[in-house]
Amino acid sequence: MYAISIREPGGPEVLEWVEHPDPEPGEGEVVVDVVASAVNRADVMQRQGNYPPPPGASEIPGLECSGRISALGAGVTGWSVGDEVCALLAGGGYAEKVAVPAVQLLPVPDGVSLTDAGGLPEVACTVWSNLAMTGHLREGETLLVHGGSGGIGTHAIQVGKALGARVIATAGSPERLQTCLDLGADLAIDYHDDLKTEVDKATDDRGVDVILDNMGASMLKANLASLATGGRLVIIGLMGGAKTEINLGAMLGRRLSISTTTLRGRPVEGPDGKGAIVAATRDDLWPLVGQGRIRPVIHEYLPVAEASRAHEALDAGGVVGKLVLVVQDEDGVLGG
Amino acid sequence: MYAISIREPGGPEVLEWVEHPDPEPGEGEVVVDVVASAVNRADVMQRQGNYPPPPGASEIPGLECSGRISALGAGVTGWSVGDEVCALLAGGGYAEKVAVPAVQLLPVPDGVSLTDAGGLPEVACTVWSNLAMTGHLREGETLLVHGGSGGIGTHAIQVGKALGARVIATAGSPERLQTCLDLGADLAIDYHDDLKTEVDKATDDRGVDVILDNMGASMLKANLASLATGGRLVIIGLMGGAKTEINLGAMLGRRLSISTTTLRGRPVEGPDGKGAIVAATRDDLWPLVGQGRIRPVIHEYLPVAEASRAHEALDAGGVVGKLVLVVQDEDGVLGG
Repeated sequence: MYAISIREPGGPEVLEWVEHPDPEPGEGEVVVDVVASAVNRADVMQRQGNYPPPPGASEIPGLECSGRISALGAGVTGWSVGDEVCALLAGGGYAEKVAVPAVQLLPVPDGVSLTDAGGLPEVACTVWSNLAMTGHLREGETLLVHGGSGGIGTHAIQVGKALGARVIATAGSPERLQTCLDLGADLAIDYHDDLKTEVDKATDDRGVDVILDNMGASMLKANLASLATGGRLVIIGLMGGAKTEINLGAMLGRRLSISTTTLRGRPVEGPDGKGAIVAATRDDLWPLVGQGRIRPVIHEYLPVAEASRAHEALDAGGVVGKLVLVVQDEDGVLGG
Repeated sequence: MYAISIREPGGPEVLEWVEHPDPEPGEGEVVVDVVASAVNRADVMQRQGNYPPPPGASEIPGLECSGRISALGAGVTGWSVGDEVCALLAGGGYAEKVAVPAVQLLPVPDGVSLTDAGGLPEVACTVWSNLAMTGHLREGETLLVHGGSGGIGTHAIQVGKALGARVIATAGSPERLQTCLDLGADLAIDYHDDLKTEVDKATDDRGVDVILDNMGASMLKANLASLATGGRLVIIGLMGGAKTEINLGAMLGRRLSISTTTLRGRPVEGPDGKGAIVAATRDDLWPLVGQGRIRPVIHEYLPVAEASRAHEALDAGGVVGKLVLVVQDEDGVLGG
């Protein structure tokens, strides 16, 4: 098969569409003939050499895909060759074929095309695990989503609304602020403004209940100051650095918590594993997608062989939603 | 009635047993004729002027008591005058009488005397809410309890074991380390030793799953380093300060969380309120006390009028378990 290799750590140009050995399904795994994959921030970090794949994972980038099952490993039940699926991957999605544990497979939600489904599992599992399972976001609470126009942000705004929360999103330009509002955000805050001041204005000085943050250190103080009593800060990225000062006294009086999470490094099995998150996403989030209350937000479709162009676009900023890498069209014609 | 007043912020000598107006039961409240109360670290901070009572709470110290119901306010059901009870209080326990919301009442557990029950609600609700509800401690996990010989620590060791966890406790002297082991701790670590080194030795470098910490800043780095992947640090006190540096990168890779909590400042109602915690404690922890798997650990009984002597003892250190303040003997004879 063909797949994307990272020739060496570096810029988008190090991504090359070259021949690889076909993957074989291990026990409990299936092989998916890939129709589409999608670009995530983690792929860029991996390309730069800053985010090595976890032990045992493919060196090929790509944390999600859609396609058709072409082979079943030993012990796989509930899935058949030919099934149209999408999947959460530990890597290997930028390829014609990928092997994946069956517990990381999802059906294609009603109303979503097989191609669009290739950009859904990573954001869906990230958002559901962090807002519902880690953040315990409840109906009637207020959610603050940083980076509201990005791949995760566009999904998180919709999930927050579907859960019955009031949603505030941040973004950095008038167009992107409007995108957040179009997706259902009740309020969009320019991240150049002072966060706590704007949150206080919007919440009668109460603060927000849950924050989904991808910045880390640079926003820690402002995020904690913007939380209501009992508020939960969920950090899923450190684009603003890792080290900073913390005032636990400002947290204790209001019973604040900070959770940090990643999806890729989790084990397949166990109560915190990928399988458990995929199962919860399928049970609780997929029906909302099927009802059309949450839809994939796709910035652009590109042929997978042009993955470098997709990475250039993400590096440049301004991408709204997901960049989908098309491996073959839905009738099976190779797009790479 | 008589009760303890804090004459002015200061040392133990500012505590005075003086006359106060009798409390009246508000709607949903009862009045308890107090048999015993107990000393908590928060009472010392309140005496020093560093922990003012929350709005609406009594100025009289005392966060728990036992006794008999002597009056019912409007709307109270399920309790009768004469019932022997213990109660979680927002204040007012160092007194002959106290008014308390009925949702903060607990029955006296089987096998516990009415006097000993006066030192149980605050530790029980603190430990249960933090280990079970906030920390989600699960059977088979490892719990680290700081200050294992203190009021909260002696209770937390027993609750950890009853939940099926492996328990590691820290303390500062050979006698207190032995106390932790006698209460069921699997291992006791001298807090003068390097925490991470000792935890690594005890866990095959895996780390612990939940830490119950009362130190805050001074232990933050060592606590985070001692957690296993998916570990939860629960901070309930800041005896080691509030401000320090934090490395979110060291947290994110292992999906760590930090929760900070207090009990006294919580509202009475609501999913995070005192009533919900008391209900969970009654449903889930009280049976374990009734079975004798968790017992009150009492350092000394003192007459409530000598509360200043109890505070001196807590200030001096070395108290193992609780200091119980006796207001009347169980037959109703005044002990103050």
